[in-house]
Amino acid sequence: MRSKYISDFVENDTISEVFLIENKSLGTTRSGKPYINLDLRDKSDSISAKVWDDAEVIFKQLGLSDFVEVSGRVERYQNRLQLKVGSIRALKPEKIDIGDFLATTESDVDEMFDELKRLCTTVVDKNLHELLERFLSDDEFVKKLKKSPAAKMIHHSFIGGLLEHTLSVMQVCDKLAGHYSDLNRDLILTGAFFHDIGKVEEIDTGKGFNYTTEGNLIGHIVMGYRMVDEAMKEIKGFPDKLSIEVGHIILSHQGRHEFDSPVIPMFPEAILVHYADDLDSKIDICRKAIESSTSVDPEFTDRVWELETRVYKGIESM
Amino acid sequence: MRSKYISDFVENDTISEVFLIENKSLGTTRSGKPYINLDLRDKSDSISAKVWDDAEVIFKQLGLSDFVEVSGRVERYQNRLQLKVGSIRALKPEKIDIGDFLATTESDVDEMFDELKRLCTTVVDKNLHELLERFLSDDEFVKKLKKSPAAKMIHHSFIGGLLEHTLSVMQVCDKLAGHYSDLNRDLILTGAFFHDIGKVEEIDTGKGFNYTTEGNLIGHIVMGYRMVDEAMKEIKGFPDKLSIEVGHIILSHQGRHEFDSPVIPMFPEAILVHYADDLDSKIDICRKAIESSTSVDPEFTDRVWELETRVYKGIESM
Amino acid sequence: MRSKYISDFVENDTISEVFLIENKSLGTTRSGKPYINLDLRDKSDSISAKVWDDAEVIFKQLGLSDFVEVSGRVERYQNRLQLKVGSIRALKPEKIDIGDFLATTESDVDEMFDELKRLCTTVVDKNLHELLERFLSDDEFVKKLKKSPAAKMIHHSFIGGLLEHTLSVMQVCDKLAGHYSDLNRDLILTGAFFHDIGKVEEIDTGKGFNYTTEGNLIGHIVMGYRMVDEAMKEIKGFPDKLSIEVGHIILSHQGRHEFDSPVIPMFPEAILVHYADDLDSKIDICRKAIESSTSVDPEFTDRVWELETRVYKGIESM
Amino acid sequence: MRSKYISDFVENDTISEVFLIENKSLGTTRSGKPYINLDLRDKSDSISAKVWDDAEVIFKQLGLSDFVEVSGRVERYQNRLQLKVGSIRALKPEKIDIGDFLATTESDVDEMFDELKRLCTTVVDKNLHELLERFLSDDEFVKKLKKSPAAKMIHHSFIGGLLEHTLSVMQVCDKLAGHYSDLNRDLILTGAFFHDIGKVEEIDTGKGFNYTTEGNLIGHIVMGYRMVDEAMKEIKGFPDKLSIEVGHIILSHQGRHEFDSPVIPMFPEAILVHYADDLDSKIDICRKAIESSTSVDPEFTDRVWELETRVYKGIESM
Amino acid sequence: MRSKYISDFVENDTISEVFLIENKSLGTTRSGKPYINLDLRDKSDSISAKVWDDAEVIFKQLGLSDFVEVSGRVERYQNRLQLKVGSIRALKPEKIDIGDFLATTESDVDEMFDELKRLCTTVVDKNLHELLERFLSDDEFVKKLKKSPAAKMIHHSFIGGLLEHTLSVMQVCDKLAGHYSDLNRDLILTGAFFHDIGKVEEIDTGKGFNYTTEGNLIGHIVMGYRMVDEAMKEIKGFPDKLSIEVGHIILSHQGRHEFDSPVIPMFPEAILVHYADDLDSKIDICRKAIESSTSVDPEFTDRVWELETRVYKGIESM
Amino acid sequence: MRSKYISDFVENDTISEVFLIENKSLGTTRSGKPYINLDLRDKSDSISAKVWDDAEVIFKQLGLSDFVEVSGRVERYQNRLQLKVGSIRALKPEKIDIGDFLATTESDVDEMFDELKRLCTTVVDKNLHELLERFLSDDEFVKKLKKSPAAKMIHHSFIGGLLEHTLSVMQVCDKLAGHYSDLNRDLILTGAFFHDIGKVEEIDTGKGFNYTTEGNLIGHIVMGYRMVDEAMKEIKGFPDKLSIEVGHIILSHQGRHEFDSPVIPMFPEAILVHYADDLDSKIDICRKAIESSTSVDPEFTDRVWELETRVYKGIESM
Repeated sequence: MRSKYISDFVENDTISEVFLIENKSLGTTRSGKPYINLDLRDKSDSISAKVWDDAEVIFKQLGLSDFVEVSGRVERYQNRLQLKVGSIRALKPEKIDIGDFLATTESDVDEMFDELKRLCTTVVDKNLHELLERFLSDDEFVKKLKKSPAAKMIHHSFIGGLLEHTLSVMQVCDKLAGHYSDLNRDLILTGAFFHDIGKVEEIDTGKGFNYTTEGNLIGHIVMGYRMVDEAMKEIKGFPDKLSIEVGHIILSHQGRHEFDSPVIPMFPEAILVHYADDLDSKIDICRKAIESSTSVDPEFTDRVWELETRVYKGIESM
Repeated sequence: MRSKYISDFVENDTISEVFLIENKSLGTTRSGKPYINLDLRDKSDSISAKVWDDAEVIFKQLGLSDFVEVSGRVERYQNRLQLKVGSIRALKPEKIDIGDFLATTESDVDEMFDELKRLCTTVVDKNLHELLERFLSDDEFVKKLKKSPAAKMIHHSFIGGLLEHTLSVMQVCDKLAGHYSDLNRDLILTGAFFHDIGKVEEIDTGKGFNYTTEGNLIGHIVMGYRMVDEAMKEIKGFPDKLSIEVGHIILSHQGRHEFDSPVIPMFPEAILVHYADDLDSKIDICRKAIESSTSVDPEFTDRVWELETRVYKGIESM
Repeated sequence: MRSKYISDFVENDTISEVFLIENKSLGTTRSGKPYINLDLRDKSDSISAKVWDDAEVIFKQLGLSDFVEVSGRVERYQNRLQLKVGSIRALKPEKIDIGDFLATTESDVDEMFDELKRLCTTVVDKNLHELLERFLSDDEFVKKLKKSPAAKMIHHSFIGGLLEHTLSVMQVCDKLAGHYSDLNRDLILTGAFFHDIGKVEEIDTGKGFNYTTEGNLIGHIVMGYRMVDEAMKEIKGFPDKLSIEVGHIILSHQGRHEFDSPVIPMFPEAILVHYADDLDSKIDICRKAIESSTSVDPEFTDRVWELETRVYKGIESM
Repeated sequence: MRSKYISDFVENDTISEVFLIENKSLGTTRSGKPYINLDLRDKSDSISAKVWDDAEVIFKQLGLSDFVEVSGRVERYQNRLQLKVGSIRALKPEKIDIGDFLATTESDVDEMFDELKRLCTTVVDKNLHELLERFLSDDEFVKKLKKSPAAKMIHHSFIGGLLEHTLSVMQVCDKLAGHYSDLNRDLILTGAFFHDIGKVEEIDTGKGFNYTTEGNLIGHIVMGYRMVDEAMKEIKGFPDKLSIEVGHIILSHQGRHEFDSPVIPMFPEAILVHYADDLDSKIDICRKAIESSTSVDPEFTDRVWELETRVYKGIESM
Repeated sequence: MRSKYISDFVENDTISEVFLIENKSLGTTRSGKPYINLDLRDKSDSISAKVWDDAEVIFKQLGLSDFVEVSGRVERYQNRLQLKVGSIRALKPEKIDIGDFLATTESDVDEMFDELKRLCTTVVDKNLHELLERFLSDDEFVKKLKKSPAAKMIHHSFIGGLLEHTLSVMQVCDKLAGHYSDLNRDLILTGAFFHDIGKVEEIDTGKGFNYTTEGNLIGHIVMGYRMVDEAMKEIKGFPDKLSIEVGHIILSHQGRHEFDSPVIPMFPEAILVHYADDLDSKIDICRKAIESSTSVDPEFTDRVWELETRVYKGIESM
Repeated sequence: MRSKYISDFVENDTISEVFLIENKSLGTTRSGKPYINLDLRDKSDSISAKVWDDAEVIFKQLGLSDFVEVSGRVERYQNRLQLKVGSIRALKPEKIDIGDFLATTESDVDEMFDELKRLCTTVVDKNLHELLERFLSDDEFVKKLKKSPAAKMIHHSFIGGLLEHTLSVMQVCDKLAGHYSDLNRDLILTGAFFHDIGKVEEIDTGKGFNYTTEGNLIGHIVMGYRMVDEAMKEIKGFPDKLSIEVGHIILSHQGRHEFDSPVIPMFPEAILVHYADDLDSKIDICRKAIESSTSVDPEFTDRVWELETRVYKGIESM
């Protein structure tokens, strides 16, 4: 646990903390001397920083999304706080408590994971059950699942966001499967569990929330499909037909080609998982738009791109 | 209850039953004599019929979607059964048991309505409660609600379909409001109840399921909005703000301009009602596509327009 | 009539005038003292203003779109004029001459209204005539009509703009109804009169040209339809069919779903009103783009969003 | 003037008339003998015809859209009249009175042309005046203008239709130019005259209304632009700028890229001509849809593709 | 090699051949006796067939796309030939010479395959070389490649079509890689080889050209990606980065989301493979439209859906 | 050849060079004195400049895209270099070496032109050959061709870019015509030569790369068509059919209506030219995006509008 977050900095503080580099560029003073501009971030906020000495040498040592240990002093320039860097050095990601740098779900991660596991145990088909079990008992995978965001920017973009979103979609699916009781509940819950699973590899939690090369060139939909397809192949006797059906739910869950799905939902269970996912994301986007609205209009946010409209802030709870 | 439905006709039957006229046209025989072609329907099937005598006079007495009492004989022509009409006369709609002519929900209408009422009583806001009460206690309205289809062709297109769909959407909303417990449940349930209410006037149940003039020129979305808006104005002290919010849910429930909504959902409760409605319709379309598929492919239906894809028929129940 | 408009301010003027608050935010000086940034507007221009004293207390007293009486001095900062506020206090809207704050039509409002009335008297159908008369003899409505803009930003966005646009569309319709003489002229002129009537409630002229809550959540198309529908219901013997036809023209006048119309024009009179409205708006947008063009290109404006192209400025009058 | 039109044929008539070949194919009887199927047309209707003798030889002599002199007998087959051909031979188009084969405007062609000329004389700019004069005094052109349809199938698709549509658009433009009096009336009227001029070459009136090769591969918009551009180049001193402006109105008159316009209207005069053209076409399509509606619904036509909706037939004239 | 193809049948022939069932349905004669309608196909044409005896029993034994040995007689009914079936029995696919039933490339399959192999040997990167080698030396795969069509209906839809199309795309890529010599030729040629590889599993050559279940629910793009991804994983030391790049070319080769690609080409080599594939398909579609045109217009085919236009048939070879 | 380019300027340099005016505006100092802001450009970079004396007089003498001779001193202001203008005067374009102001192709213009001519000589059809010859032997045209860019901003936007792009498209077409050897090679090469020819008039090379009035209002597609159409008309005996085919290739080469083509490619040769043009542009855009990428991401550029995606920078040459 760090001693001080950016949001608590005041003028003249002397600071020695670890930050994430969000942006870096090299400038030149009027007298021609080079210096470094940095945007540093922890989970509370970000701050501009300047390195005046040895700029060109140090610049090459710093990478985007690196974690750096910085000591320096907080100054005020043109009415905003900035950090005058004394010393700076890169740290290895494994030395870092990622929770200091990225926003984290407000829910309890372990409780959520337990509830997720509980829902998985209600799947009765033995092949699907074994498939889920493989992932839930893979410690490496579980660790990633607990840390991943559900998206880079759009919804549930915080540590644990993927877990929170996956659980919420499973709970919604659980309720809907109860209502549409003629549908295959096992397939629905399994599809809900795996729909976004590719995101554990698509977004690099080690260095901020950037897409990996594979995340960009292959995409989380196909990556998730591949992960689950490989696991199904390893389960002896897993029926081909079932494996195609599970694969289809993952590939089609975005619902439309323009949202990167190579196929469109072709059976009720796939349609249901798509709607549950879409609804959960949209509700989260809507809530977040209201919370973080900076519009001057007291009743409406500015236009929210994903919702294709402005959001009304005036609904009261009961 | 009629004695015989079209699906039970066999060659040489002598028939005297009531039918709905689906199509009519005037033809001429080789010898130049006029005759009438009719497509007659009851809820089981439709059959082609010919009137050979007094064709021109009778033709003018028959309107599209009229109910007619016909006696005649079942013949076979070019390998299909058709009806040779002896006598035919138009009946007044009120003399008809509409259930003989249109498909009917397989669920119990009164049970569904009781469940709908029960859900409405869980709305605690007193203004919304009174609003719902006004509709539920209006016998004329309730009678229409119990008879209306939810759509002319697409989903829940049978007597009681609107009630069945409305109840299903309310049940889905009830479950989702439980999951997204920070949202305003009263507004969600009220919106779910009213979202398709304009359909009781949009589609004319008296004469087959045709759109009324107003259904075509104004549309069920605005018609439903107007019905509810007028009711809210009659409730003393109904808050303006609340009335605008309820109106918005009705107007925006189709979710997109291209589906005739003049506004897009602008708050979470409106988004939720839109998704619940859309999901319930799509599941019904999907089920129906599987049930009524006539494709030669054993695994896939033909392309279903509303789903933008073919439907896979291979999912097994658990 | 005020003594001085913003466009006439020069450095060192001492000012005591009424302004509209377009934007407000709270800042902090280097020494940590809070101050208020305001954007103030009258109909000639807008100016940045600073309140240095009692900032936090005063900030809470000022609302967006409030009218405020301000005394202060005009200074120059970073090469632009700004207002250093001495005293500031909110005024009630009714004390304000709105014409001081918003641009006004260049035509004579009363002359335009007289011409509008004259055109209405040429409608011979007695029901439509009575319908128009109801609105024209409603002083409250007429007052709003004379003040409303036709749009928030796009076309005819000034006091009296709605009247000017409505009159222009009626005049165009009058001419076109003369040309297409087989169409129902009464319906055309009535539709033209009412097509944008919802705008008198959609845009709040009292506090700048902001959309009202209802303007955002319901929209002017449905609001206008409702106003006219209620009036038609109050006229004894107004034919249902005619009322649906008038309603359709209002609801369909935007011509396309993506422009918020829940229905598409379904008969020639509705098509004609849609084209007259669309043409009049586009001509106005085009003229305005030429007048206010700030592009460096001497022959073309920058891209005009509504026209999907740049506008050519080179046409000469005859 | 022919003695008998197809619509007047009755069984057993012996016929000797000229027809247009709309469709032709070669069939084989059960006994293996070849015969020719023809669809023959005059302006009143079309009829199926059979040639039983010398089928293979005659088939090669007949081209699509040829005019043929046919003698034969009217028979009844499967309840429809058809023509049993005795003799058949192709005629040269110049021997034909095209008015016997294609529908003709109901208005007086010479009166329309006189009114068109009168409107052209009101153009005061001497260059535009000379340009119009060139076309009006070109007898070959005028003859084509009087015969051309305005479209192959969509609107004004009859002999004289182009003249009728062009005059109507000019009259509408004349009225609108009076209303928007700050616009350049000369440019508007000239643009209206020329907007569809390419159609005199795009559609081949000699052999039914088929597109010419050039009509398909180049299109009437660019063909019309080229015709007028060449004429402007021949007028000494015709200003370059004016010639570009006239060209732009022709090229942009369809208003949108998807309707084949390579440029979008970029000034008010071009916008106005586009709207006048579009309105006139849509009103004609709408009228025609009502006149020729074969829908069973007494109040609505079937969906009209160009209007993206069904058309309401219920409006009464005043 | 069969003795007689459908296109050579004449009335009264006695036939004993193998056919593919394209369509089947059960009918009833006027006297109420059931019979079977079949559409039978060989590579030359298709023919309607009737089974009059034991219809209900036999119907159940026949599956869609089954191969059947049929003996019977060719009759003429309503001017068309049809087959009166004497005996019929299903055959195992492995007994069939598929070349009798499906159209086959006109090129020499072995020559094409040799040229394909030769082009593969010009890839110098050792990892990509080994990857290609794995597929080329897999006899099972090569056999499928030689038999698969490139599409079910659109282009290269015949036995060997996938090989012909793949070779053509590789040859085009070879030429373009020579022209754009700064690009990575190895990646281009490898991408070209694999771009449609999933089609060997997507379309079932065993029973006509129907999509497999997996072809419908997963699609050839992801199936091909998976095949190649698995092979790359099996090659020791195959660089991750290279494997992502190859995968990207396969996934993005359709170029646009609406054509089922989950990603869009993101580097020049992927763009080039997409264009080569698209061009080769379009040229083939265009040629085929001209060859098989049944339009009555001597110069233009009917509208070709994939080209969004009609095709001009008038270009002469040099 | 100038002595110094902007990219080589350092603080305190005294400069006397010619620049192009990219932007100009008039400002006022705090003391109320007017001054001129200029953006000046040469081919290396652009620089901000201030004129402090006689600002209002000089401002009127300077036009956008004028070339000006400027002497002054390089200063540093807010950490960026700017030019304090001593004297400034407009120059006539003909005095200018345009190569100093605009980027130039890196290839040898004369070598490229020779290769272009060589390819043209391989066209064997005598009419097409003569047509090409007319353009190649027109010195005025050749001069323009050698100087024109292929686009204002998107691809090949430098002096000689049109020649470079045209040659590249011809070379690609040459290779593809070799591969698709059943197509008409003469038509393909001729179409490739002329496809963008209108750009020699669309973009004004005399004053920066701005669109001419005609370039905006008519567009390069129709301008190019007109140039070639006029030349074909001047060639005695040039077949009408061939002239329509050549015209179609030019008009359709953008491939889609939304990219300004009034017709869609309707035969294989037109399709091939469209693909060659599109591919060559996209490859150039992709290369340029990689070269000029300023994104902080080491592996991906920012989103490239024309490619509808970000570009991956990681491919290695072989």
